[in-house]
Amino acid sequence: MVTAKVWVLKKHFEGFPKTSDFELKQIELPNLKDGEVLLESVFLSVDPYMRPYSRRDMKEGDIMIGTQVARIVESKNPVFKEGVFVVARGGWRTHFISDGKDLQLLPSGWPESLPKSLALGTIGMPGLTAYFGLLKVCKIKPGDTVLVNAAAGAVGSVVGQLAKIGGCKVVGSAGSDDKVAYLKKINFDEAFNYKTVQSLDEALRKASPDGYDCFFDNVGGEFATAAIKQMKKYGRIAICGAISQYNESLPQKGPYVQVPMLFKELQMEGFIVTRWDSHREEGLKALLKWVVEGKVKYCEHVTEGFMNMPMAFIGMLKGENIGKAVVKV
Amino acid sequence: MVTAKVWVLKKHFEGFPKTSDFELKQIELPNLKDGEVLLESVFLSVDPYMRPYSRRDMKEGDIMIGTQVARIVESKNPVFKEGVFVVARGGWRTHFISDGKDLQLLPSGWPESLPKSLALGTIGMPGLTAYFGLLKVCKIKPGDTVLVNAAAGAVGSVVGQLAKIGGCKVVGSAGSDDKVAYLKKINFDEAFNYKTVQSLDEALRKASPDGYDCFFDNVGGEFATAAIKQMKKYGRIAICGAISQYNESLPQKGPYVQVPMLFKELQMEGFIVTRWDSHREEGLKALLKWVVEGKVKYCEHVTEGFMNMPMAFIGMLKGENIGKAVVKV
Repeated sequence: MVTAKVWVLKKHFEGFPKTSDFELKQIELPNLKDGEVLLESVFLSVDPYMRPYSRRDMKEGDIMIGTQVARIVESKNPVFKEGVFVVARGGWRTHFISDGKDLQLLPSGWPESLPKSLALGTIGMPGLTAYFGLLKVCKIKPGDTVLVNAAAGAVGSVVGQLAKIGGCKVVGSAGSDDKVAYLKKINFDEAFNYKTVQSLDEALRKASPDGYDCFFDNVGGEFATAAIKQMKKYGRIAICGAISQYNESLPQKGPYVQVPMLFKELQMEGFIVTRWDSHREEGLKALLKWVVEGKVKYCEHVTEGFMNMPMAFIGMLKGENIGKAVVKV
Repeated sequence: MVTAKVWVLKKHFEGFPKTSDFELKQIELPNLKDGEVLLESVFLSVDPYMRPYSRRDMKEGDIMIGTQVARIVESKNPVFKEGVFVVARGGWRTHFISDGKDLQLLPSGWPESLPKSLALGTIGMPGLTAYFGLLKVCKIKPGDTVLVNAAAGAVGSVVGQLAKIGGCKVVGSAGSDDKVAYLKKINFDEAFNYKTVQSLDEALRKASPDGYDCFFDNVGGEFATAAIKQMKKYGRIAICGAISQYNESLPQKGPYVQVPMLFKELQMEGFIVTRWDSHREEGLKALLKWVVEGKVKYCEHVTEGFMNMPMAFIGMLKGENIGKAVVKV
């Protein structure tokens, strides 16, 4: 008999999540049935989507949604052997049982030296989000100028590097000078700290006086308003996230977008990466290759201890991480 | 020597245009040079785009921008014979001279019985706007539910009828009971008067409880906010106009669009019909055919007299017209 620790959503978030909104519980797991495996979480992911989806998909008392890299510690399923690492949608749990259907092996060719936590980041959902968002929504082409915000985050940092591989000029916005320094290190052409610039309009104009062909938006709100003003004719806007809005209790307001959308003939599209699940393998293969070749650098913000999941989640929402925020059990 | 009457923009519009913003002048036209033609306006168009474009493209004292159906009264150009009718970008003038480069013949097969003014409306720029907007931006397919506002206007009334031809369910919003009656007459499935409904959200829900696949937006502002709420997953929004915003001196605000755009994975695109100029003939041919076959009905709001151009323009901005607003010289 295995005892799992789990984090439960005790109270739906109002405004910014608080540690008291979570509760740690223990659950006794039953014995495995045929076809099942027992998994032990090794790395857990904390992601922005958990904030809005908690309201949409969960009720109070549910175990927090989420994904992890987990090791199979016992198996009654011929496909998944003991000792194998998988990506799972197990929620915030130290141990859990699966029938294998929702488990994904790491992409083939994963070098032993590569942290397995990257399967939650640059070579996982956030990396795929950057890959498909640029390819399918921004439709980048060589010579484009690409703007990305939350650029030092798990998705943004990959967006910038992939756009560079694609022959684009890349401008990134982030919320600290350390992050800006990181962006320059990973080859962004221009980067600025949106918290300290006098005027966002001016910072965007200065970074690309000709404007932007593509805007990969992780933030929404005032940043999006300023960016739309600087878009070139026929510009493409990929809405990947709206983290500035997730913790607002009431819908915030900004200038209507229709007039600039119309006269500049802009495209704006919201997307969720699962739309391209059938192309997942292709995306992971490309990302793994670039990481192995050193063409895409990665950075992780690792919090130690399952106990610290809520703190890691809240810290990520506050933007404390550079690169992907993960929790090491 | 011919004397042309012309309407000049005396003062840039502030808020809603006033008749005192215009000035009537007379201009003596020179004799024709080789290659030139002298034209006499027969029908002049008044269109919403003139409001924002006056600010963008004109200075005070310029002749008002615009198109007309004109008759060639004298020709030194072998391509354009006397007596022929063309569509021209001549601005608000009774007479003008052209070298022929900006003149377009009416589509071939135009029946004598068909009003030539339709070349400014259903079989002209507004019709093409509906055609390409639905085809290229909304990407309608049979079974889609299409929402259009300003539905009794020059563009909206064609949008609804083309969407019906394309096998869609069509919901229209307009600003008077007469307009709503007209929409039902031209085969809209549902239509409502947005000025008298208690709640726009409720009216949109009632007209299509399952939501909307496509939203052809001529209005922007509060209507767009309400419509975005009712879009289905993967819905497409074509921004054709934003007439609710054109007469506002300051940018108006509404709820940020990013969160619904993201979680419903919506597409929004602004477009200007000139983008498809190279497909113009194809579009006009289709529209002419449908009009001749009676599959697309037309309605015109004709103001008599060149003197009344400003009044016709202001009336159109106020929504006094059903169908296309034109001025008969």
